[in-house]
Amino acid sequence: MSQILVVGSVALDTLRTPFGEADDALGGSAVHFAAAAALFAPVGLVGVVGSDYPVARLDFLAERGVDLSGLEQAEGSSFRWGGEYGYDLNTRETLFTELGVFADFKPSIPDHLKTCKWVFLGNINPQLQIDVLDQMDSPEFVACDTMNYWIDSERETLMELLARVDLLLVNDEEIRQLSGDPNLYRAARWAQAQGPTHVVIKKGEHGAVLLSDDNLFFVPGYPLEEVFDPTGAGDAFAGGLIGHLARTGTLDLDELKRAMVYGCAMGSFDCEAFGPRRLQTLTEQELADRVRLFRDMMTFEIAPSLAG
Amino acid sequence: MSQILVVGSVALDTLRTPFGEADDALGGSAVHFAAAAALFAPVGLVGVVGSDYPVARLDFLAERGVDLSGLEQAEGSSFRWGGEYGYDLNTRETLFTELGVFADFKPSIPDHLKTCKWVFLGNINPQLQIDVLDQMDSPEFVACDTMNYWIDSERETLMELLARVDLLLVNDEEIRQLSGDPNLYRAARWAQAQGPTHVVIKKGEHGAVLLSDDNLFFVPGYPLEEVFDPTGAGDAFAGGLIGHLARTGTLDLDELKRAMVYGCAMGSFDCEAFGPRRLQTLTEQELADRVRLFRDMMTFEIAPSLAG
Repeated sequence: MSQILVVGSVALDTLRTPFGEADDALGGSAVHFAAAAALFAPVGLVGVVGSDYPVARLDFLAERGVDLSGLEQAEGSSFRWGGEYGYDLNTRETLFTELGVFADFKPSIPDHLKTCKWVFLGNINPQLQIDVLDQMDSPEFVACDTMNYWIDSERETLMELLARVDLLLVNDEEIRQLSGDPNLYRAARWAQAQGPTHVVIKKGEHGAVLLSDDNLFFVPGYPLEEVFDPTGAGDAFAGGLIGHLARTGTLDLDELKRAMVYGCAMGSFDCEAFGPRRLQTLTEQELADRVRLFRDMMTFEIAPSLAG
Repeated sequence: MSQILVVGSVALDTLRTPFGEADDALGGSAVHFAAAAALFAPVGLVGVVGSDYPVARLDFLAERGVDLSGLEQAEGSSFRWGGEYGYDLNTRETLFTELGVFADFKPSIPDHLKTCKWVFLGNINPQLQIDVLDQMDSPEFVACDTMNYWIDSERETLMELLARVDLLLVNDEEIRQLSGDPNLYRAARWAQAQGPTHVVIKKGEHGAVLLSDDNLFFVPGYPLEEVFDPTGAGDAFAGGLIGHLARTGTLDLDELKRAMVYGCAMGSFDCEAFGPRRLQTLTEQELADRVRLFRDMMTFEIAPSLAG
């Protein structure tokens, strides 16, 4: 089984939702991704925290088999983010962003992680994402996330990165902004032409869509009646998706489809508690049960004939 | 095979979209519904047009087997609606609404259509929808649409109607407004408790979701790269859905799932040209091909085991 390298933020989140509040919840793209992916395959995490970070609270990742030797602890404050969600949970307001030591993050990949075959570049400056790739031996599959801020300010570097990735994972707003096309499918085709064979568009409560070569595959959002805290769900989605691919070691369309479902399942679990807490306790049985629910909600058989 | 009765508007639409303009396009819920449903089962249409209506342009419906004997032509102007769509086609602006003879529409069901087993009540005053049901002999399956205007102004009558329908077909905004709940699934469960066993929520480009007893089923929106004119797509969706159910004569979950796919397919075709023009020329082969595309975009098989 191949190991996955994730590079991204490790943060402390202050969360306000209609269902409650949490201070200093574990957060960051690398944490949510690793918490999800570790259920599928071995993960190595590279990131930075400040001297104030409660590192022991990441023990659950180590227990799930995440290699934390690439997590640097630097002098200074940890990355802190505060967000407030409205009742419909589709809109969120950023209360504050304190980058702390994350502002000077220069990912340094430990030698024993340079051989990872699967790489997930969480949402950081595209130049740093390129720097990570430059340090790797010969990854077989590289996925990246990004955000509106980099699309605006670092477009050229981002395009350079796109030429080197196999999978671009973005949300609907981001792909529209990146391509300048309001139509999601044309936008995704445009993105494919820049490099990635696979493009995944995350649509929040509406699920996600995969474009892989000429193939399309949709997974609906899991119908949660209570979305407790959607923070990190996109990274947990990426963790389930890439985790499943690494576990199987293949990129067959059938595995890609399953990987999309595992991604949506992990994203949905991540919404059920503050931070990655729900993923900490998640069992393989619970995951398998949810995947079966997705199957029941999605699959149908074609009738013998239209006239039938 | 059972006959379907549709009662709704028959209009002339003035359409402005980024792809072109059309004046006096055939429009109205009953027209779009019938144009779709007629591919599946015999349809009887009840509605009203003014003395200015180009009735001969509805001949294509008769040729598809739609019984137009319930279409009354009254002295006065026909119902005219004008709408303009922005480039993303998710937002539309109503340019004008001229009810004409539709303002005094009192549906009168011809005797030979009172025996229809399947009934679709298009979006009209809920009191008129109830009046239609009161004229029917013993329909086996009644579906209704409604809109924000009636939810606001005729809530009590609408609730009376809901107690008498089997399927409520609304969009996401409408179900939220009707239930007062921002969560779609709780909102739909609430609606089920008011009467309908089946609730379908139309989500435009994001597809549609069916709640049937405790079962859920999702169909994504078909990935059109050019949405020419979305007017009437919701009614064409209803036509495909109810048409398929009437054709098979069953409400098994498997048929309901297929019906949802036929609905989404018909809705997507209806977006490809102004008015119901695309439905006029649609062949069974084209429909079957699109349903296969939906199958490929939606279905997956569960892996033998999570550890696999």
